[in-house]
Amino acid sequence: MSPPAQNRLALNQKTTNAWSLREAIDGCVAAGLSSIGVWREPLAEAGVENARKWLADAGLRVSSLCRGGFFTAADPAAIEAAHAENLRAIDEAAVIGAVTLCLVPGGLPAGDRDLAGARRRAAEAIGRLVPYAKERGVALGIEPMNPIYAADRGVVSTLGQALDIAEEFAPDEVGVVLDTFHVWWDPALREQIARAGSRIHSYQVCDWITPLPADSLLARGMMGDGHIDFSAITRWVAETGYAGDVEVEIFNADVWAAPGEQVLATMAARYADLVEPFLC
Amino acid sequence: MSPPAQNRLALNQKTTNAWSLREAIDGCVAAGLSSIGVWREPLAEAGVENARKWLADAGLRVSSLCRGGFFTAADPAAIEAAHAENLRAIDEAAVIGAVTLCLVPGGLPAGDRDLAGARRRAAEAIGRLVPYAKERGVALGIEPMNPIYAADRGVVSTLGQALDIAEEFAPDEVGVVLDTFHVWWDPALREQIARAGSRIHSYQVCDWITPLPADSLLARGMMGDGHIDFSAITRWVAETGYAGDVEVEIFNADVWAAPGEQVLATMAARYADLVEPFLC
Repeated sequence: MSPPAQNRLALNQKTTNAWSLREAIDGCVAAGLSSIGVWREPLAEAGVENARKWLADAGLRVSSLCRGGFFTAADPAAIEAAHAENLRAIDEAAVIGAVTLCLVPGGLPAGDRDLAGARRRAAEAIGRLVPYAKERGVALGIEPMNPIYAADRGVVSTLGQALDIAEEFAPDEVGVVLDTFHVWWDPALREQIARAGSRIHSYQVCDWITPLPADSLLARGMMGDGHIDFSAITRWVAETGYAGDVEVEIFNADVWAAPGEQVLATMAARYADLVEPFLC
Repeated sequence: MSPPAQNRLALNQKTTNAWSLREAIDGCVAAGLSSIGVWREPLAEAGVENARKWLADAGLRVSSLCRGGFFTAADPAAIEAAHAENLRAIDEAAVIGAVTLCLVPGGLPAGDRDLAGARRRAAEAIGRLVPYAKERGVALGIEPMNPIYAADRGVVSTLGQALDIAEEFAPDEVGVVLDTFHVWWDPALREQIARAGSRIHSYQVCDWITPLPADSLLARGMMGDGHIDFSAITRWVAETGYAGDVEVEIFNADVWAAPGEQVLATMAARYADLVEPFLC
């Protein structure tokens, strides 16, 4: 018997931003989901050991821990502080058994216009984490980010660029987090997904909507509300042999204002319609 | 004697959006500029033949005509209408002697999520214009657009992609319009600028500012107000042998609300400081 259609659907906690981790776990169980992407802030509120127990008791997989990263500081003390913070994130990912620690590269330091330099520092900082992560069995997932965030959030702008960094290491050590919102526009997307192969540690879906909401950090839409062809991208991901969960991660003020149960119902319906049929 | 520093600085008319073409021409002359990028709407208001005389009398070069394009319709009648409109734009560019006709590729048709298909149609539509443009001595300049506009304005998202289209033709037939706002984030920018060589028909400058203004169409900033390293990009452009004008094209509500003379003074000062020193 094949597993139920929603089996690989995961709630990324950010989609139900008003929920605590406890509420999000309960919401997933009530909705019949078997996987969740956890964020560090609500994880800290819950306590990591509590969270581990809750997740195990609920029988949920942890598709990702969001997020490490913010690697681009130029100041030595800030670089060390970011490194230490990432070691803590790795520890947490190990405790809750996250499939990957999602790494958001970080933007340009204030007043700094050396984009190539920031990119170099991000690559170096990731490499420095690998031995520690490997010891703890945590896979690092670099998230290339839409160029809309190149200045202030993520200097790794394409999947190809993320793979250039990842390929310095083994696929189970460093891979990528592939979010449709960030990569859908890339003319090289199909070939770079094929290149990624087993390095896709997480596949996240949400839509690109227009007009772009006023706050560009909250510009993501529910699948089907925007311009992204989920059938094509999902097929390309499936062709790599990707067998992991599919996280729905939506930063959007309207989605955040809606009741969590309703958001889960909508995302499950959209997933079943627009994503799941193309996963195998 | 070397020419004055501002000799290659051009006002793109959109930067002084409240000015008519007549006012913009007078503003350029008063500011000591010798080049202007013209937009079709104010050109139509002035009358193309009037504009030709005014520009000639003022001794201004026309660094570009903005804009043709919007090639991505899927409906045959809309495709023909866009083609006819582009032929008119070519005629106008020929009359006023524009160095290039700037082509904005266009976004996805409403409800259409086939990005690859829209990109194919844009490439085909450009190719179809080439013989007519060549007969009239008008060079076509494809403008790759920041991925922020991939859905609703420009499906050509990288310089490399624009060059893939342009290289089907001679460099003086089809080239590119390189706008820092659109391309600054591209990890492949340096190599793609080198690849572009003599195909850079226009170099436009404005800045990427954060937080991104609420209206993403008006998100561009004055050079120096944002995150772009104009020294690096300008050097790469200069290394191709680019000897054309440098247009300042800014869509920004605050810039548009300021007196035109003040905007020209600011842009000339910023250009002299941030761009011009790296042009040779």
